[in-house]
Amino acid sequence: MNSLERHDLPLSKIPKRWYNVLPDLPRAPDDYLDPATREPVGQDFMERLLPKALIAQELSPERWIGIPEEVRAAYGLWRPTPLFRAHALERHLDTPAEIYFKYEGASPSGSHKLNSALAQAYYAKLEGIDRLVTDTGAGQWGSALSMACSLFGVKALVYMVRASFEGKPYRRDFMETFGQRVLPSPGPHTAYGRSLLEKTPGHPGSEATAVTEALETVRLNPGDRFSMGAFANHVLLHQTVVGLETREQLEDLGKQPDFLVASVGCGSNMGGFAFPFVGDKLAGADIGILAAEPAACPTLTSGEYRYDFADGSGLGPMARTYTLGHEFVPPPIHSGGLRYHGAAPLVGLARHEGILDSRAYAQKEVFEAGSLFARLHGLLPAPETAHAIRATMELAEECRRTRRRAVIVFCYSGHGLLDLGAYGSFNAGEMADAEPYECGLAAGDPALAGLGGR
Amino acid sequence: MNSLERHDLPLSKIPKRWYNVLPDLPRAPDDYLDPATREPVGQDFMERLLPKALIAQELSPERWIGIPEEVRAAYGLWRPTPLFRAHALERHLDTPAEIYFKYEGASPSGSHKLNSALAQAYYAKLEGIDRLVTDTGAGQWGSALSMACSLFGVKALVYMVRASFEGKPYRRDFMETFGQRVLPSPGPHTAYGRSLLEKTPGHPGSEATAVTEALETVRLNPGDRFSMGAFANHVLLHQTVVGLETREQLEDLGKQPDFLVASVGCGSNMGGFAFPFVGDKLAGADIGILAAEPAACPTLTSGEYRYDFADGSGLGPMARTYTLGHEFVPPPIHSGGLRYHGAAPLVGLARHEGILDSRAYAQKEVFEAGSLFARLHGLLPAPETAHAIRATMELAEECRRTRRRAVIVFCYSGHGLLDLGAYGSFNAGEMADAEPYECGLAAGDPALAGLGGR
Repeated sequence: MNSLERHDLPLSKIPKRWYNVLPDLPRAPDDYLDPATREPVGQDFMERLLPKALIAQELSPERWIGIPEEVRAAYGLWRPTPLFRAHALERHLDTPAEIYFKYEGASPSGSHKLNSALAQAYYAKLEGIDRLVTDTGAGQWGSALSMACSLFGVKALVYMVRASFEGKPYRRDFMETFGQRVLPSPGPHTAYGRSLLEKTPGHPGSEATAVTEALETVRLNPGDRFSMGAFANHVLLHQTVVGLETREQLEDLGKQPDFLVASVGCGSNMGGFAFPFVGDKLAGADIGILAAEPAACPTLTSGEYRYDFADGSGLGPMARTYTLGHEFVPPPIHSGGLRYHGAAPLVGLARHEGILDSRAYAQKEVFEAGSLFARLHGLLPAPETAHAIRATMELAEECRRTRRRAVIVFCYSGHGLLDLGAYGSFNAGEMADAEPYECGLAAGDPALAGLGGR
Repeated sequence: MNSLERHDLPLSKIPKRWYNVLPDLPRAPDDYLDPATREPVGQDFMERLLPKALIAQELSPERWIGIPEEVRAAYGLWRPTPLFRAHALERHLDTPAEIYFKYEGASPSGSHKLNSALAQAYYAKLEGIDRLVTDTGAGQWGSALSMACSLFGVKALVYMVRASFEGKPYRRDFMETFGQRVLPSPGPHTAYGRSLLEKTPGHPGSEATAVTEALETVRLNPGDRFSMGAFANHVLLHQTVVGLETREQLEDLGKQPDFLVASVGCGSNMGGFAFPFVGDKLAGADIGILAAEPAACPTLTSGEYRYDFADGSGLGPMARTYTLGHEFVPPPIHSGGLRYHGAAPLVGLARHEGILDSRAYAQKEVFEAGSLFARLHGLLPAPETAHAIRATMELAEECRRTRRRAVIVFCYSGHGLLDLGAYGSFNAGEMADAEPYECGLAAGDPALAGLGGR
């Protein structure tokens, strides 16, 4: 009896175009606002921030955007990725549901993040940009951008949350091996970092401090541009190669998905995986799209839909989306990639319009799911991915009770090889559940009135 | 300009048979000897050690041995693996040579080791064996066997060199996440371990101590069998899926290899990669087969071809092959997988018969090669693999000087994600070259006369 069943696409089937969900959504996303004026951001503001090609993609009305041949060639390092059917998990759960997953774990950077990193590095090179500056928390995005910049011959500077910089030396070693510069945040290299360290020596940092330091650096260096690993529309656009391939693989199998499941920190893997099915759904296909979140940071499940800062300090644009409040600091769970206060605006909009649902899971049940999956299938999932596995198991158990032969497809966003310390703590019985988020505690904080950290 | 060019085989092309080089070699390998009697080992001795199916494979005269359907299905987790052409490295070296590599780095355990681990776990299950007991140094083999045993529902017990057990917690976490037991060697669980710890408290262990503890455990537990990650003929047999796929991929491209390059610790990746071409070579094809070894442990380059113990203590069979002496303890280089005093007997025989050559490289030049390769190609090689890259670069540079348009193919045996600490030390300029092996220092030690540790 097979544990897994694999479905491949040939190299020639790497998508030639990214899919832009904007024209297919029931309404356009709300404008980004300039934090200083609260007016829609102007072209100048954006051009100091991002490569021009990405600005054009950010609000493009075109449904399809061509993938440059160089980016497609780089995707060929590991794409198209396999779609697997998880027979052993189905048997273990004794469910009539069919469980499939799209396997992004063979990416050489370890996750789906590389899909956008390669595109961003390519455009930076094309536009003669000296250096991309970014932030990284757990290190997945920083790793992907470092590798991509190395491939396209662009410099990268990564501000890495100090707690991770010190606690996850392998991630830092990875980025430096690709010749890129990694600085702890907060650190002495920016005015913001210095001010934080003065107030709180040994400050452990957060996504918010890292983004702010990156933005300050970009503002001071005309040759620099900012690079985002999630949030922005163009990042989700690049990630649609995941969903487009999945859609084609399911068609090859003659399968229609009943449920699509992905973890959501900010939303880049969810957007990339599920958006290519939104057209089908809005045209009447009965597809449930489920976001799996950590109970400690349940942005879509417990957040408010309103304008907030994307970063923690108010240097970048404001966006309308689900948020737990930009001053909310999620507890230190092991799924670093899901510790973000806000959702990508397009994922937030999709949630607001009822296109996707969300559920939140506690840390230990997530690691139980990840561990079980590894033993059944020989693949060790990242903690972020384990959230999607936990949600998939819940759906499959519901199908057992209702005897529904549903087709559930989840996104296996990345492998857990650099998260083994967390599995070790779980194996040793030393893992605790983080305090679950309490609705209203931070989300109700009317920080917007004062334009906080600005 | 592409950095890489990828050549895939469809899932249906996973080999259906392993290739056994024995009948094609100019002469049969010398008998294994029972260490107690110095007579050829008997069937009883072998049956207490290994699953029956593996004993049959060990000395089979058949050129082709069928791969069980269950093993083939498990190979489908990641096989067939791609063959890449390394355009960027060719350009960087300004060489007329064409450089290809067989990419075993997408294996879910991280290396080629899984090819044999799955077969061994399958046969153990089939024969109702309770538990496989093994040794691991760097952790690649222990990881592969743990995962494979988990997939086939067999227990594994891994004796892990204590220095690695303590210094590489991720590897231990990996094996334990797959539900397997990992013990430090030496440790208090065996008489041999206790005796070592009594003499030398805090003994760091070595491959030799780990093998001895594994063999003692197997001897005391009738339901246990020993499992090897290299050395034995049957392990190299299982690894031939690597070379068989490579051969087919080169044929698809209309290419004949001029050089085949692989790193050699004991020889499982070299044997698996190059043996399927040995028939062509002996039939007259001009193929150079080059083993890349660490200068600190140059078994094929500086060892003697003679009978020696495969383990450090003389519990297992003796074999005739290249050896640096079973009491030689290689210095602590970062390529843990290459720290072994002896060569697999079939690789030793091939070297003795002039079928393959070897060269040895110092640690820093190896990490320079691995680092350069990562930056050019976006793939981070294991330190073991970086030896093959270093040798390939040397060949390609020779081709530049001689203007030879040779086709060089190397085996990318595994990724370096769990070796990032070593890259970190290299990046920080803190890596030193180990003392190179001095010919005769240990190899000349007439340990055989006394049957040492027995």
